[in-house]
Amino acid sequence: MPDKLAALRQELTLANRILANEGILDAFGHVSVRHPDDPGRFLLSRHRAPELVEVSDILEFTLDAEPAKPTNLRLYGERVIHSEIYAARPDVIAVCHHHAPAVLPYCVAKKPLVPVYHMGATMGWPVPYWDARDDFGDTSLLVTRPQEGRSLARALAKSWSVLMGRHGATVAATSLRELVFRTIYTNKNAEMQTQAHLLGHVERLSDKEIELASAYNLRPGPMERAWDYWVRQLEKMDAATGGAARRPVSKPVSKPVSKPASKPASKPASKPAWKKPAKHAKTSRAGKRKAKR
Amino acid sequence: MPDKLAALRQELTLANRILANEGILDAFGHVSVRHPDDPGRFLLSRHRAPELVEVSDILEFTLDAEPAKPTNLRLYGERVIHSEIYAARPDVIAVCHHHAPAVLPYCVAKKPLVPVYHMGATMGWPVPYWDARDDFGDTSLLVTRPQEGRSLARALAKSWSVLMGRHGATVAATSLRELVFRTIYTNKNAEMQTQAHLLGHVERLSDKEIELASAYNLRPGPMERAWDYWVRQLEKMDAATGGAARRPVSKPVSKPVSKPASKPASKPASKPAWKKPAKHAKTSRAGKRKAKR
Amino acid sequence: MPDKLAALRQELTLANRILANEGILDAFGHVSVRHPDDPGRFLLSRHRAPELVEVSDILEFTLDAEPAKPTNLRLYGERVIHSEIYAARPDVIAVCHHHAPAVLPYCVAKKPLVPVYHMGATMGWPVPYWDARDDFGDTSLLVTRPQEGRSLARALAKSWSVLMGRHGATVAATSLRELVFRTIYTNKNAEMQTQAHLLGHVERLSDKEIELASAYNLRPGPMERAWDYWVRQLEKMDAATGGAARRPVSKPVSKPVSKPASKPASKPASKPAWKKPAKHAKTSRAGKRKAKR
Amino acid sequence: MPDKLAALRQELTLANRILANEGILDAFGHVSVRHPDDPGRFLLSRHRAPELVEVSDILEFTLDAEPAKPTNLRLYGERVIHSEIYAARPDVIAVCHHHAPAVLPYCVAKKPLVPVYHMGATMGWPVPYWDARDDFGDTSLLVTRPQEGRSLARALAKSWSVLMGRHGATVAATSLRELVFRTIYTNKNAEMQTQAHLLGHVERLSDKEIELASAYNLRPGPMERAWDYWVRQLEKMDAATGGAARRPVSKPVSKPVSKPASKPASKPASKPAWKKPAKHAKTSRAGKRKAKR
Repeated sequence: MPDKLAALRQELTLANRILANEGILDAFGHVSVRHPDDPGRFLLSRHRAPELVEVSDILEFTLDAEPAKPTNLRLYGERVIHSEIYAARPDVIAVCHHHAPAVLPYCVAKKPLVPVYHMGATMGWPVPYWDARDDFGDTSLLVTRPQEGRSLARALAKSWSVLMGRHGATVAATSLRELVFRTIYTNKNAEMQTQAHLLGHVERLSDKEIELASAYNLRPGPMERAWDYWVRQLEKMDAATGGAARRPVSKPVSKPVSKPASKPASKPASKPAWKKPAKHAKTSRAGKRKAKR
Repeated sequence: MPDKLAALRQELTLANRILANEGILDAFGHVSVRHPDDPGRFLLSRHRAPELVEVSDILEFTLDAEPAKPTNLRLYGERVIHSEIYAARPDVIAVCHHHAPAVLPYCVAKKPLVPVYHMGATMGWPVPYWDARDDFGDTSLLVTRPQEGRSLARALAKSWSVLMGRHGATVAATSLRELVFRTIYTNKNAEMQTQAHLLGHVERLSDKEIELASAYNLRPGPMERAWDYWVRQLEKMDAATGGAARRPVSKPVSKPVSKPASKPASKPASKPAWKKPAKHAKTSRAGKRKAKR
Repeated sequence: MPDKLAALRQELTLANRILANEGILDAFGHVSVRHPDDPGRFLLSRHRAPELVEVSDILEFTLDAEPAKPTNLRLYGERVIHSEIYAARPDVIAVCHHHAPAVLPYCVAKKPLVPVYHMGATMGWPVPYWDARDDFGDTSLLVTRPQEGRSLARALAKSWSVLMGRHGATVAATSLRELVFRTIYTNKNAEMQTQAHLLGHVERLSDKEIELASAYNLRPGPMERAWDYWVRQLEKMDAATGGAARRPVSKPVSKPVSKPASKPASKPASKPAWKKPAKHAKTSRAGKRKAKR
Repeated sequence: MPDKLAALRQELTLANRILANEGILDAFGHVSVRHPDDPGRFLLSRHRAPELVEVSDILEFTLDAEPAKPTNLRLYGERVIHSEIYAARPDVIAVCHHHAPAVLPYCVAKKPLVPVYHMGATMGWPVPYWDARDDFGDTSLLVTRPQEGRSLARALAKSWSVLMGRHGATVAATSLRELVFRTIYTNKNAEMQTQAHLLGHVERLSDKEIELASAYNLRPGPMERAWDYWVRQLEKMDAATGGAARRPVSKPVSKPVSKPASKPASKPASKPAWKKPAKHAKTSRAGKRKAKR
């Protein structure tokens, strides 16, 4: 069903660009969707800022976080966030990892993010807090190894969002549009919660209110209305910039001119620091995995 | 007087777009105006993000919140906010429901919003706080049933703005321009109040200052000056985007590609959760009302 | 010297538009400059949002705040802010009245605004706090009568900025460029002060640091560098919007369609509330003054 | 190797414009890079707002902060920030001095800026706090004399960022791209830290986490991805504004029309205040230095 796959790659590109245009993603973060015909695969861009992602950047990956076809392209380092959640949660169809400005403070303050208005109910409840320190001690905080991805997926459990200590958040959904909706309104909810906290009181929705409001908002009507709105914002931006945001990068990335003569500022050991074995490393499902980057 | 009605539909479209362009409305919220010749009817867009509303989207509704002419178009779920306020308040000509970012925290913190500068006096005073919980227990927080709209209208009483717990706010006015003015400056007042609170003290206007400042600001001069300014901001946006924001959506909304194979994440009961009877449901004026969405 | 006057009107127009483009002014606020050849007169726009001001809107006023030539144009209601400061302070060449978002909270919280970084030193020191209540009891807070303007000018004394309780601020300078510089950096200073306050400590500049930093920044070099930067921001905005922000409004302002059938929401007495005599009204220098608006 | 130098001047121009476009620099602040072939020289723009810097504005300076070739162009007053850091730190290749809005409050509140998320780890650790008062008593806070630059460089020590009391921050790096990356993410880290502080708790990265995360992020992959993203933002801005931001300023800066008739507001002594000898002035390496501006 090649047409369906092509449409999905287009929709994934759009999801990347919407989340960048709405200020959720900057140069970093990534968005994926499960393969429509093969639940053992998912689609994810090669290593690029989400706003710059084009349809041709979308690659297929297995649940070992390896590209389905060999490639020399540079890949995101945190693919296991996606692969391990798809492996652990058959009901999950789309995943986003981000460092959104209103959510991140909750990942630093270790304070619970709670639904404070009806739109925020869509983030799901509860929102667990995962800290790489608990299972792995000191790390780069990047989730690059399968056991780290699995630990994160365990923390997510049956929820739809998980906060990652001193790092960001990961969001799951049953479709790409639900993912975009949940991610954007979770960030807005966080903004509102912080402001209410500063005013002196945070009244959260009751469990039943969360259930009812989330069900109401995630129907096709509200989701299409919001999707149309975000697509229009993208169209406006493209029109304003003459499509500059969509210009294909056909030539290789420009190389830096200014660079240190000798060695980088923080001297990595012979084995790079970010590849050192974690304290409590567990058995990798992909022992054969190449340390690609 | 068809010309007058056409001009009013144009002005309502403009009010929708101004409130979106000024950051009060995003994909959600809605704006209405009472019919100029029939106080038993009001004008409101079909179900669309306010920024995307076009003149042809404006429909007429009765005070039962039903479309005056049968339609297959998708309609806003919260039409009763408008209909019940028009029914209860003959002096109200225009209504806006929103989740504006500076006002919403007051709906979460349950702290009174007070006029803190002369422009803020135009929000009216006092600003009551309505909580769906009080009359209806746990709901989706959406105001979709006539009795909910009536309860909200009772809370609004003779005021011009009402805060809705964990949801947003509703604003009333004696004209569309007054509505836009009041809504925007209420949001600015909330910003200022929050910042003053953080500085350690909130000095509100005296009751007499509120009355005098509000009367001063709501004269035609200041209101036209502000309206011209907001229209110019829209014109600039349209010019910058080559009118992309105004492109008619002639084709049906694009359908989602990525969607769950089986059933949604939160499993609604056979009767959808958001349609369950409220705990304290009261007699509906529109027993015949179809649950349109 | 007509060329000089024409150039000054152009510069005043630019000052209006820069302060709007930098977010200091919205639909309200105003900027004036003293007449270069007649210290008893000053230039100020007719009643318009500052961003929309064109050279042809600039009118001459006497120090009685009356137009030098009779006009039917609508005028700003708060002209006495300008006239009374020019009357009281021969060294003042330019005046701005604004409700800038970072400064206004200090006018609500009654907390002193202090220079917290070298650029903030240009706001002058100290920054007095004036409250219309002290001399006039309950008013609309608008400064529309000569005695109110004089009271404000007395509060300003020899300073360069004055906070106005529950209203805004007024800034004076020895040139238009200094005025723009001072106004913008006072607002930035306020932002920084608020954030530092939230972090738990505000270390202000010493009196000598204020004197030295202010003298350094207000030399021609830094002021031209900043002016060029703000002009470039305007040029970019004009380029992006195809000059929409500069389109002359040749036709009269569009009239509102939606309006109340009978009378405004807050019923003014036969004599409008905002024109009622103040409690402690003092002798007016301009007994002949017509209550123009 | 003239091509290399031309490319570096181009890259420095880009770094200036990126840091302006990302909101780190406004009319003030400056960015430099060490000469690729002569470690005793560095490249820095003439006195202009960073966003307006063009390749032809880039001049060469010696480590005495003097232009390598005599020039009549106006120069930045704080060149010694750059020269003294290059003199003290052979490993530093690029330097930025700024007053970024999220970082500055830490320079006022005297609170430590700490890495709170993996991206913030790139600011380096620790971030020392330098106060001109300690060595020089009351000054204009501007760092214009060699001994002030040396004092600042001593405070920076082996770190990569230094906060400057009531003034701003200075950032060093081993390349221009690392400099841009570090500066932008230090500002984002400060935003997040402030928000977390307001939520009631700041959990910082452990020393080992800082080391690992910084090493991970400063590899070529992430840095190129971010650089491409920031360049794209510039391209979009240029496209939207028809290149207005790049229009050469061929004619001299427009002269102010409005200016004081007699003397500036704060009367400088016969010897300008900002040139008075500091209390604890130390021997200048460049006794021959002309007080250029």
